[in-house]
Amino acid sequence: MSYEKLVAHYRRVHHLSHVSGIFGWDEAVTMPRGSGQARAEAMATLERIRHDMAIDPRVADWIAAAKSEALDATERASLREIERSYARATALPPTLVEAQSRARVRCEQAWREQRKTSDFEGHRPLLEQVVRYEREEAQCLAERFGLCPYDALLDRYEPGFKTALLDTLFSELERILPDLLEAVLDAQSGAVVHTPRGPFPSDRQREFSLELMAKLGFDFERGRLDTSHHPFCAGMPDDVRITTRYNEGDFIESLMSTLHETGHAKYEQGLPRQLRGLPVGEPRSAAVHESQSLFLEMFVCRGLPFLRFAEPLIRRAFAGQAQRTPEAFSAENLMRLCTRVARTAIRVDADEVTYPLHVMFRYRMERALIDGKLRVRDLPEQWDAAMQRWLGISTGSSHRDGCMQDVHWGSGLFGYFPSYVLGALMAAQLFEAAHASIDDLDRRIALGEFGPLDAFLHDRIWSRASLVETGELVAQATGKPLGTQAFERHLRRRYLAAV
Amino acid sequence: MSYEKLVAHYRRVHHLSHVSGIFGWDEAVTMPRGSGQARAEAMATLERIRHDMAIDPRVADWIAAAKSEALDATERASLREIERSYARATALPPTLVEAQSRARVRCEQAWREQRKTSDFEGHRPLLEQVVRYEREEAQCLAERFGLCPYDALLDRYEPGFKTALLDTLFSELERILPDLLEAVLDAQSGAVVHTPRGPFPSDRQREFSLELMAKLGFDFERGRLDTSHHPFCAGMPDDVRITTRYNEGDFIESLMSTLHETGHAKYEQGLPRQLRGLPVGEPRSAAVHESQSLFLEMFVCRGLPFLRFAEPLIRRAFAGQAQRTPEAFSAENLMRLCTRVARTAIRVDADEVTYPLHVMFRYRMERALIDGKLRVRDLPEQWDAAMQRWLGISTGSSHRDGCMQDVHWGSGLFGYFPSYVLGALMAAQLFEAAHASIDDLDRRIALGEFGPLDAFLHDRIWSRASLVETGELVAQATGKPLGTQAFERHLRRRYLAAV
Repeated sequence: MSYEKLVAHYRRVHHLSHVSGIFGWDEAVTMPRGSGQARAEAMATLERIRHDMAIDPRVADWIAAAKSEALDATERASLREIERSYARATALPPTLVEAQSRARVRCEQAWREQRKTSDFEGHRPLLEQVVRYEREEAQCLAERFGLCPYDALLDRYEPGFKTALLDTLFSELERILPDLLEAVLDAQSGAVVHTPRGPFPSDRQREFSLELMAKLGFDFERGRLDTSHHPFCAGMPDDVRITTRYNEGDFIESLMSTLHETGHAKYEQGLPRQLRGLPVGEPRSAAVHESQSLFLEMFVCRGLPFLRFAEPLIRRAFAGQAQRTPEAFSAENLMRLCTRVARTAIRVDADEVTYPLHVMFRYRMERALIDGKLRVRDLPEQWDAAMQRWLGISTGSSHRDGCMQDVHWGSGLFGYFPSYVLGALMAAQLFEAAHASIDDLDRRIALGEFGPLDAFLHDRIWSRASLVETGELVAQATGKPLGTQAFERHLRRRYLAAV
Repeated sequence: MSYEKLVAHYRRVHHLSHVSGIFGWDEAVTMPRGSGQARAEAMATLERIRHDMAIDPRVADWIAAAKSEALDATERASLREIERSYARATALPPTLVEAQSRARVRCEQAWREQRKTSDFEGHRPLLEQVVRYEREEAQCLAERFGLCPYDALLDRYEPGFKTALLDTLFSELERILPDLLEAVLDAQSGAVVHTPRGPFPSDRQREFSLELMAKLGFDFERGRLDTSHHPFCAGMPDDVRITTRYNEGDFIESLMSTLHETGHAKYEQGLPRQLRGLPVGEPRSAAVHESQSLFLEMFVCRGLPFLRFAEPLIRRAFAGQAQRTPEAFSAENLMRLCTRVARTAIRVDADEVTYPLHVMFRYRMERALIDGKLRVRDLPEQWDAAMQRWLGISTGSSHRDGCMQDVHWGSGLFGYFPSYVLGALMAAQLFEAAHASIDDLDRRIALGEFGPLDAFLHDRIWSRASLVETGELVAQATGKPLGTQAFERHLRRRYLAAV
C-alpha cells in the first residue's frame, strides 16, 4: 500500500529530525565555543539531507495513490498532514534550505557574544543575511500557496492562521490591555510584598526543580533538565530536553521558567506513541505548544492553589532562607511575587499583563521586515519608539535590552512571536474548560493531585497531536472559537479582583 | 577538477560523521534511558544515509579522473585514502550497514544493564546477532580485498596490518611477559606503598583534572570533559569530548584515566586543519591513537618526572587528605601507586605489564568467533580458561568481571583489541625517540614544560594524520620498524631497575 510507504518514508525523515533536535540541543547546551563554525557546516549539511529526503519525488506518487486507498479517519488525517508537509518542503529550493541553516546558526552563535556588548553593528550583516533568506523563503511559499509573504512564514508555525485573524485578536487586546495595565499597577501599588532573601544556591534550586517536575509528572526516563543561557525545550517525545538558568538571588524566576518548559515537555511526552514519526503525530502548532507551557506556568503554578501546595515544599527546600524571612514564604506572599506586574524591557521576564504588548509590536516589526518596509539598520530606532509607545520605557543604546534581547529573528523564526499570545489565549480558554470539567479543581491542585489535569489535557490536546486543525482543536477542547474573552476574564479575576 | 569534487563530497560525508560523533557521545553521556530504542532507530538511519553518501557512484568516476590530474604529494596521499575509503564502503551492502548499526546500539544499550547482573544468557542473543553481522561484513570485505575474514575486520582499524604481523609481535610478548611479570611481582612484593586516604570528592577530582588537562595543553575552546560509566574519547577535532568516572576512594585511578583520554584528545586537536573532513586528515589508525593516549598516561604521567611536577599540585588540590597521610603524597610514593603490578580480572584497570596478556587472548577469541571456530555460547567457559592460563585467576560465573566486562564485541569492534598492544609498542618507541630528540626531557617534564613534547608529537604524528601508511609513520617517527624491544626495555627499566 502506498500509504504504508509514506509512513515508512516519513519515519525515516523523522529519524533525522530526532538527530537534528539533539544536535541542536547540544549546540546550545554543551558545545565548546570554538567548534561553532564546524558545527554550522555540519548542521547545514544535515538540514540539506533531511530536506532532500522530504522532497523525494516518489512521495508525490505515493500521495496520489494513497488517496484512492481505503484509509480510516486517522490515516486520512495523516495523509492530509503528509501532503501539507510535502507541499511546504517542495516549495523550497534545496540550496536555500542549506544556506539558510548555515546563516541562522552563524547568526545565533554570533548573537550570543554580540548581545553581551550591545554590538548591533557587528550583528547587523549577519541578521541582514538571515532576513534575506527569510524573505526568499516567504516568496517561495507565498507563490506556492497563494498567500502574502508574512502569512506564508506564519503558516510554518500556525498552519491555517492568517494575519487577518491576528489583527482582529491583537486589536482587541490593544483596546483592553493599556487601561487594564494601568488599573493593575494602581491596584498593586499599595500591596506589601516580602522578598525572600537568598542566596539560593543553584544546586539546591536544581534539586527542587527536579522534585517539582517529578510531582508534575515529567517522565525522567524520557527527558532531562539542563542549564543553558536561555531556557528552552528541545529533543523529541522520547527524549525531551528542557533547560533553565539559575539566579541565585531569586529562586522564583528560575522555578517558574522551569515549570514553563515542563509544560512544553509534558505535551511532547503525551503525544501518541502510535503516531510517532508521522507529521500527524507532531504537536499541532507553536501556539498550542505555548498554550501548554503557559497553562502550567501561568494558570496552574502561579495560582494560589498550587502555591499552597508548593509552600511547605519550598520552605523545606530553602529551610535556612525561609527561617530568615518566614513571611516571604507564605503562599499568599509567593502569589504576590508570582503575579507582580511591571513595565519592563525584557520580554522573557515580563508578566502576563504586559507580555502581549511586547509581542504585538514585534509582530508588526517582523511583518514589516519581511514585506521590505523596514530595514534591519532601522530596527534599533523603531524598537525604541515601540517600547516607548507600548511600555512607556526606553532602553536607549542598550541594544542588549532592546532589539538584541531575543534570538528569534537571528534564528530565522519570523512568524513565531504571535504564537506566544495565541498560546496565552488558548491557555485561558483551556483553564476555564478544565474548571468546568474537573470537580474541585482548585482543591485538587492544592493537594498536589495533578492526575485529573493531566487526563484533561491528554484527552483534549496531547492525544490529538495534529489530527485536526488548530481552530477545530481549540473549539472542541474549550467549546469556543479562539478569542480574547477568557484571557481578559482571567486577568481581571487574578489582578483586579483578588489582589 | 575532479579532485576538488571529491574534496567537496568527502567534506559533506564528514559533516555526517561529525553529527554521528556527537550523537553517539550523547547516547553514552546524556541520553535518558527510556529513549534507547528510538535512538537506535535514528542512529541506524543516520549511518545508512552516511553510507549511501559514501558509496555515491560519482565518486568512482571522480577518482578515475583525478588520477590523471596534476596533484601534489598531499593530494596524491589524499586520493589514496579516498580510494581506500570508497573501496571499503562499496564492499558493504547498505542494508547490512543499517541493520548492523541498529544491532550494535541495541546490544550496547542492553549490555549496560545486563552486565550489572552478569546476565550472559539475556545478552547472548543480542551478541550473537552482532557477531552474525560482523561475520557478514568480514566476508564482504574479505572477498573484495582478498584477505582472510579477520584481517578484513582488522583492516578497519589498522589499515595494512595483518594477523601475520600480530602473531609475530604477540608471540614475542608471550615469550617475554610471563617471566617478566613474575620478576616484577617479586621485586614489588617487598615495597612499602602508602595509600592516600580519601574520600576525594568527585567535584574536587574534576576540578583538578581540568587543571592538569589545561597544563597539558588540552584546548577547552574545542573540547570538553564529562562523566560517563566508561571513559572514552569521541566527537571530532574541533569538538573533542573526553569522559571519565570518579572513584571517591581513589583519585589516581580517575586521574590517570582522564590523562589517558587527554592523550587521545590532543592527537585529535593536533590534526591538520587544512585536511579537515578528508580521509587523509583522519587519525592514522586505532593503534596510533592508542599510542598517543598511552604515551601521555603510561610514559609521561605515570613517570617520576611528571609526578614530581604534579606532587605540589596534588597536595594543594587535596590539601586536607594530604595532611592526613603526607607520606602517601610524595612523588616517589605516587610513582609506586602508579606502577603497581597485579594479576587482576579487569582489563581497563590492568597495569602495563599484564595489559598485553588481557588483549592477546581476546585477540585469539575474537578471531575464532569471526572464523566460526568459537560460538558465543562457549565464550564464558573459554574466557575463564584463558584467564586462568594467562593471568592465573578465575572469575567463575561472575561474567561482569569475565567475558561481559568489555563492550567492544557488543559494539561490533571486532579487530580493535590488538590496537591497544600495538599502541603500547609504538608509544615505547616514540618515548625513546623523544628522549633522543629533546634535551633534558625528564627535567622539562618535571618543570611542567610540555611544549617540546607537544612539538615532537605534533611534528612526527599529529600533523601527519593519514598522509603515510602506519608502518612508514612509525619508522619515520622513531627510526625503527614496529617491534617489541623498546617496550621490553621500558618495562625492565621502570619495573626491574628502578623499584
